[in-house]
Amino acid sequence: VNCEVLAVGTELLLGQIVDTNSAWIGEQLALAGIDSHLQTKVGDNLDRIVSALRAALERSDAVIMCGGLGPTQDDITREAIAAVAGVELVRDQAVAARIEAMFASRGRRMPTNNLRQADVPAGATVIREPQPGTAPGLIVPIGEKVVYAVPGVPTEMRAIIGEAVMPDLQRRAGSTAVIASRTLRTWGESESGLAERLAGRVAHLDSADAGVTLAYLASGIEGIKVRLTAKARTLEEAQALLGAEEVELRAELGDIVFGVDHESMEHVVGDLLRGRSLTLAVAESLTGGLVASRLVAIAGSSEWFRGGVVAYDAEVKFSVLGVRRGPVVSAECAEQMAEGVARVAGADVAVATTGVAGPEELEGQPVGTVFVGVWDGKNADSVHLRLPGERETIRQLTCIAALDVLRRRLVG
Amino acid sequence: VNCEVLAVGTELLLGQIVDTNSAWIGEQLALAGIDSHLQTKVGDNLDRIVSALRAALERSDAVIMCGGLGPTQDDITREAIAAVAGVELVRDQAVAARIEAMFASRGRRMPTNNLRQADVPAGATVIREPQPGTAPGLIVPIGEKVVYAVPGVPTEMRAIIGEAVMPDLQRRAGSTAVIASRTLRTWGESESGLAERLAGRVAHLDSADAGVTLAYLASGIEGIKVRLTAKARTLEEAQALLGAEEVELRAELGDIVFGVDHESMEHVVGDLLRGRSLTLAVAESLTGGLVASRLVAIAGSSEWFRGGVVAYDAEVKFSVLGVRRGPVVSAECAEQMAEGVARVAGADVAVATTGVAGPEELEGQPVGTVFVGVWDGKNADSVHLRLPGERETIRQLTCIAALDVLRRRLVG
Repeated sequence: VNCEVLAVGTELLLGQIVDTNSAWIGEQLALAGIDSHLQTKVGDNLDRIVSALRAALERSDAVIMCGGLGPTQDDITREAIAAVAGVELVRDQAVAARIEAMFASRGRRMPTNNLRQADVPAGATVIREPQPGTAPGLIVPIGEKVVYAVPGVPTEMRAIIGEAVMPDLQRRAGSTAVIASRTLRTWGESESGLAERLAGRVAHLDSADAGVTLAYLASGIEGIKVRLTAKARTLEEAQALLGAEEVELRAELGDIVFGVDHESMEHVVGDLLRGRSLTLAVAESLTGGLVASRLVAIAGSSEWFRGGVVAYDAEVKFSVLGVRRGPVVSAECAEQMAEGVARVAGADVAVATTGVAGPEELEGQPVGTVFVGVWDGKNADSVHLRLPGERETIRQLTCIAALDVLRRRLVG
Repeated sequence: VNCEVLAVGTELLLGQIVDTNSAWIGEQLALAGIDSHLQTKVGDNLDRIVSALRAALERSDAVIMCGGLGPTQDDITREAIAAVAGVELVRDQAVAARIEAMFASRGRRMPTNNLRQADVPAGATVIREPQPGTAPGLIVPIGEKVVYAVPGVPTEMRAIIGEAVMPDLQRRAGSTAVIASRTLRTWGESESGLAERLAGRVAHLDSADAGVTLAYLASGIEGIKVRLTAKARTLEEAQALLGAEEVELRAELGDIVFGVDHESMEHVVGDLLRGRSLTLAVAESLTGGLVASRLVAIAGSSEWFRGGVVAYDAEVKFSVLGVRRGPVVSAECAEQMAEGVARVAGADVAVATTGVAGPEELEGQPVGTVFVGVWDGKNADSVHLRLPGERETIRQLTCIAALDVLRRRLVG
């Protein structure tokens, strides 16, 4: 089975919106082992949608259409599918009732147009909408082939693809296998370094036909992700395979694995602080508030985050944080900043950044020279980094590196 | 003339990279009044690229192919175009020489593959590469139609499209018109509010056939952009039209216009501070370092930015900034934070944020209640905002709103 993606919307062609949906759908198809050879964007024009859909159905077994299911006159994906299938649109009374109920519950008048979202090509299966009152997804068989229609709103699209489209596609592919994946998030090792350390495991997985595959996803300032994908007869079996392989990988990689799946570095640090009942302060020079703003972005961070000082100017380091006058691109400065901000903000532990983001060198130190200081309540220590890239990259890399230094210190 | 976009690369289909190039190209085509009805992504497979290109040339007058021009065996856009055109690839000696010179200048051995970048379909015009040693763009006439090939690296792609592809397309379209645009950046008025205030101007532009059109681009936390596009016989004429219309719009909109084109709010604030030889400090509660980090992101900000205090915990507001004990979601707190941080960091002026980002209310104040304090060196003042959205949106909106409060104070 192969499957094309057809994204519908004039705003996509005009570049007003970047089509991230197709990329996400492509990733899901790849993960499930379903080939996708072509992805197309077409505007809100009936003739052109119809011919794009016809062409896609000639080439491929299945087509996922994304967008054009809303209530306005521009939203004509339903009409285009009906035209290609050679059937009429019929109103689904259950969907219509949910749309009417949604408007009634909010005390709002319902424009008649909104009921268009309940019109479906005859013979289509309606995929229950993720939120009552929105457009449902559709599964429309056309001869031996199939068209799926999903909304363009990313959260609704993802829910419908995951819950209904992928299972239906896999069933058509004759695959009874269940696919599950898990991502180990790492910091502190290059992609080639990871590949070298895991070469033995990968060779084992390949040779043993273990049902687990491994891929690296470089994710910039979020580190490098090692994604495990398992194929098995049941979800439980797939999860067991993933669990066993995670143990092997962690044994090999040690503490460069900082989290799993959606656990960001700041979430991990926050959980460690909460678990130890410690409060944190940060002192930032070149990162200029980035570390603090990532921590504050976590709901509930007020439990463990006290605040910090953005000591961008050297005088602020001396006068506010009590750093001794001297070079500020130094291990001593980073350590004194950490100790100083813990005292000033009344926190148990602290982390500090100082260094050269560029564009020019500072105190004779080249761009990319960074010191991260950490204060654990008793002692100050520091790590010296040499980071690649330009100003913004260096600042972002310093941010995650500083959180990682703190994480390692908290873990012990 | 209409023109399709064909993006080449298996990584695009797999969702490893989101195809932002096509969106950008679509925007340029729309700006130039050239229709683009379809955009396609295809993988690195010769047969499939060839058939996608043939199909595109059947439908459209011109095709811009993006990607697949690099040195590796995967890069086969040149081969595909030659196959469709029915010509051979021939080596362009000037391009080959520049590639060899680039490697020689860096003292690196050149893999033979790299010379593949100098192979071009017979009859093609080579577009001078933006950096010597990279792949050139190509203009390949096929019958009455034309194929453009541009690299997938965004900066190189944009340079080649702007300098060579768009002018060639406009020439083919028989258009001797020059198109130019200018964007006025606004903050503090909704899109519908802007539309209401500018209704008279838009009616005038429409009725007078003035050669200038106007569009709104909602850009989230960057504000709403009002884009003017002018069409004229020469660039000078187009610029004169834009300049005259900018005067009219500024007269109507006043100080809600904060910048033009790529001037962000923080750039504008930085320029104002530099022009007045003033230094700035910031005190942040709910924004938690976001304001500071946006300021530090500007190269040269050390001239006017001293630093700040992230006073997330109330105690930090009292002990570090000298705020009097009392409600922290208040005008008084915001004003005292601003005055306090100016004193602590030794700055001439200061801005401060305090409020409720959620998810829960605070001190009986609802989520979205925000106070921005500003200290001008003599007096403190504050602005009370009620912001929509969830935690992260509220924090981001507070950030630009705070910079805008400071901007207005500096402008006077």
